[in-house]
Amino acid sequence: MPHERTAPVETLRVTSEGEIAAGDVLAVEEPLEIRVAWRTGGEQREKPISVTMRTPGDDFDLAAGFLFTEALIRSGAEIEGIRVWGSPNVVRVALADGVTIDSAKLDRHFYTTSSCGVCGKTSIDAVRVIQCGAGNPAGARTRIARSLVHRLPELLSQNQSAFHATGGLHGAAILRPTGELLRIREDIGRHNAVDKAIGSLVREDPESLAGAILMVSSRASFELAQKAIVAGIGVLASVGAPSTLAVDAAREFGLTLLGFVRDGRFNVYAGEVE
Amino acid sequence: MPHERTAPVETLRVTSEGEIAAGDVLAVEEPLEIRVAWRTGGEQREKPISVTMRTPGDDFDLAAGFLFTEALIRSGAEIEGIRVWGSPNVVRVALADGVTIDSAKLDRHFYTTSSCGVCGKTSIDAVRVIQCGAGNPAGARTRIARSLVHRLPELLSQNQSAFHATGGLHGAAILRPTGELLRIREDIGRHNAVDKAIGSLVREDPESLAGAILMVSSRASFELAQKAIVAGIGVLASVGAPSTLAVDAAREFGLTLLGFVRDGRFNVYAGEVE
Repeated sequence: MPHERTAPVETLRVTSEGEIAAGDVLAVEEPLEIRVAWRTGGEQREKPISVTMRTPGDDFDLAAGFLFTEALIRSGAEIEGIRVWGSPNVVRVALADGVTIDSAKLDRHFYTTSSCGVCGKTSIDAVRVIQCGAGNPAGARTRIARSLVHRLPELLSQNQSAFHATGGLHGAAILRPTGELLRIREDIGRHNAVDKAIGSLVREDPESLAGAILMVSSRASFELAQKAIVAGIGVLASVGAPSTLAVDAAREFGLTLLGFVRDGRFNVYAGEVE
Repeated sequence: MPHERTAPVETLRVTSEGEIAAGDVLAVEEPLEIRVAWRTGGEQREKPISVTMRTPGDDFDLAAGFLFTEALIRSGAEIEGIRVWGSPNVVRVALADGVTIDSAKLDRHFYTTSSCGVCGKTSIDAVRVIQCGAGNPAGARTRIARSLVHRLPELLSQNQSAFHATGGLHGAAILRPTGELLRIREDIGRHNAVDKAIGSLVREDPESLAGAILMVSSRASFELAQKAIVAGIGVLASVGAPSTLAVDAAREFGLTLLGFVRDGRFNVYAGEVE
């Protein structure tokens, strides 16, 4: 069953009182290759652009979300179709007529310097996909009630079925500012959980992303903040700590950033709550 | 202070009892580019091979550990020298005379199939760097006492100074099977924490890696298991859950894998304890 999200495994449980052979349930981890095909100047081109270690399931959403949050496509309409390609661990995204991929964006293994970076730091250019002027202007910030923030951890936890079975999956939930749950996804990789949730909306309900709330079970790294900003999300809330660079990016691009959202408390690192 | 591991930030702490503006301390996150220079056929070559989001500090260890655990070099002796290169976020590793890099290994963004994979799964080939026949034969497994396993979480926690300040850093400790602590490192990325600890030993005390114990504060993914196997480590113990693929790799390559090592208990997923 290569495409189950969890799998049974034999283990030996050891406690201070002794040990016992037992069955356990673990999160499945498998690589997914994302390939992109497009036409340019009458010529068909195809390229594998990423291999990510993911938990199987929602692979088309993951591919669409990855392309979108990495700024390789600008909308779901730029995708003509997505198919499994020869193996359950390979998906191929065909781009719509006239849509091309900027090959330079595919190779960000280079450290470049320029005066136009998030928060003015040249160091960020190596991994930056956000364009200058992107993100929400401060006046368009999402208004989020603190009572809703306090409810987010339980909401995420209640819907994380595979996490409860395995203890090994990250969760990502997207809600409207009113608190209505739009999508919730799980994955062994926190970036993948976010890409699956965003990708699902990119494909099916893209308007709902604008100003939405993204709640993650993990820490808030720069890359998660960047994905949120690229997707037009208004609030990123994380159970764990943010990084310095996530705070810098949130402040520069108008993303409300909340950390340590748990146990009836939270910290506001960027933006405001009501 | 771009190379501090933690940095102060202003935040608003919100609890059920009210809110207060306060200072907080966060883990610093910055990209590090690793460049490699080598000579081949009398010609000098140089290539950026990775950009990783890391917490500054121990960058030379991180670069050495990354090259070693990704099987791009086989020992610390293959490194002639490591230098900061133009920016504090770029390091350049010069390889020793006669050592070259297999460029094919630098580009693993391709999904390939073959009958020689970890646990026989073709799916793993896309990310696999372990060679067939690598790892410890079953007869050479590290013998680890369960009393030592129970002590590992506290040992890691006691030495994680920056984690306690920020809540945002992963820890990795390497010990001899006797329990003697060899290295402990922290980073915002769990792979980086492992590469820093391993890299330090690769550079200064490579013999100690054989059969050593690696304790991580995170979950145990396939990539962490693979790094441990490539380094010749005998036991990988994690506070969190392992993935299915980590268990598969550990069983195939003779790595003892312990998960949920906390609160006076743990699970044995591969190998044995005494």
